[in-house]
Amino acid sequence: MTRLNLLVGGPQSQYPSDWKKLPGAWVGVDRGTLHLLEAGITPLFAVGDFDSLTTPEHQLVVNQVAEIHAKADMDETDTDMAVRLAFVEHQATEICLVGATGGRIDHFLSNLFMPTQPRFATYTNHITMIDAENFIQFYQPGHYQLTALPDYRYLGIVPLTAVTHLEIQGAKYPLHDWSSAMPFSWASNEFIPGQPTQVSWTTGVVAVIQSRDLRGQQLDN
Amino acid sequence: MTRLNLLVGGPQSQYPSDWKKLPGAWVGVDRGTLHLLEAGITPLFAVGDFDSLTTPEHQLVVNQVAEIHAKADMDETDTDMAVRLAFVEHQATEICLVGATGGRIDHFLSNLFMPTQPRFATYTNHITMIDAENFIQFYQPGHYQLTALPDYRYLGIVPLTAVTHLEIQGAKYPLHDWSSAMPFSWASNEFIPGQPTQVSWTTGVVAVIQSRDLRGQQLDN
Repeated sequence: MTRLNLLVGGPQSQYPSDWKKLPGAWVGVDRGTLHLLEAGITPLFAVGDFDSLTTPEHQLVVNQVAEIHAKADMDETDTDMAVRLAFVEHQATEICLVGATGGRIDHFLSNLFMPTQPRFATYTNHITMIDAENFIQFYQPGHYQLTALPDYRYLGIVPLTAVTHLEIQGAKYPLHDWSSAMPFSWASNEFIPGQPTQVSWTTGVVAVIQSRDLRGQQLDN
Repeated sequence: MTRLNLLVGGPQSQYPSDWKKLPGAWVGVDRGTLHLLEAGITPLFAVGDFDSLTTPEHQLVVNQVAEIHAKADMDETDTDMAVRLAFVEHQATEICLVGATGGRIDHFLSNLFMPTQPRFATYTNHITMIDAENFIQFYQPGHYQLTALPDYRYLGIVPLTAVTHLEIQGAKYPLHDWSSAMPFSWASNEFIPGQPTQVSWTTGVVAVIQSRDLRGQQLDN
């Protein structure tokens, strides 16, 4: 298995605290490349035009990163391009995005909807997105058995597209044969301790979001 | 015009800095009710079971707020219920959500997708969502002329659902007759100074996101 982690240009305040310990090599996307180098991690490759970097920052990236790709197609984002290169050119079998949430919502939604693009359908089930509070997986139609991550309390089942015959079984709030032309977030569900949750549907792309309150958090979420 | 602002339970770090100056009366949703009272604002009504509040906090809410609604239907979120009551019972003509972004992504997506619910179709074009960096409007199919907000640099055109015949004209990056079964975020577009942008489409719900870098921000977005 070749797992690659992509560090995207979202706000560092949203990174998971243990992001540097994630298994696998790293890929830098735009400003994420600089944050990798600052953390002492040399990315396998980087994508971006780096036009938001200062001249010394840009020089650091050029000196340290052996493989740099500048975007040729305006309709493909830097993140899209990095995902494509990771799977197609670098034979990744799993990718994990960090720095893909928070900040500008148009950017976040571009990342969130990326796994629904038909050209990535083969890869949808192998894409994960992690931030400080959320662990997101993406799935094409099928039957799945979900198990709780340690320390993640909540389970969101989120059709990002039209969906048919969605079932949730074995969780706190079951759902039977639900279809919708519109996206919808079935938020705040929970695993039953020691028991897997079964989900299935026949068409559409669904995000499975495990989330938690931040350590010591007593207030908003 | 009766404009109501809803303060939802998302993280206070994401509130726009000038949120207390927004025109119109306020509605508290769950913990947002407490934040309103702490800011010296008495909400017109509040929605929630307030089970995350301490006993003194709960007592404060009960003492101060004349109209409190506890949720009866598990399939309707507190925010959904507050939106319904604002439009249907309190004859709001515009509503603005604050505290609807950040934190748990299942909650955020529940808020973001709310205006796509068919039962809210009459109200979609009258819902706005604001946070520190983003100003989001929601629209049913039609022809719209968009104008730049002061200090917002970026324009995201985001089909949240399947969309047909989307056109963007008069912006930095035009788009011609684009249709998709999947959601997609056309991120990082920009207004041309002094010129409105025209957008149109024939089916689907689209979010228009104006965003900005935070004041003094030189780094991530």
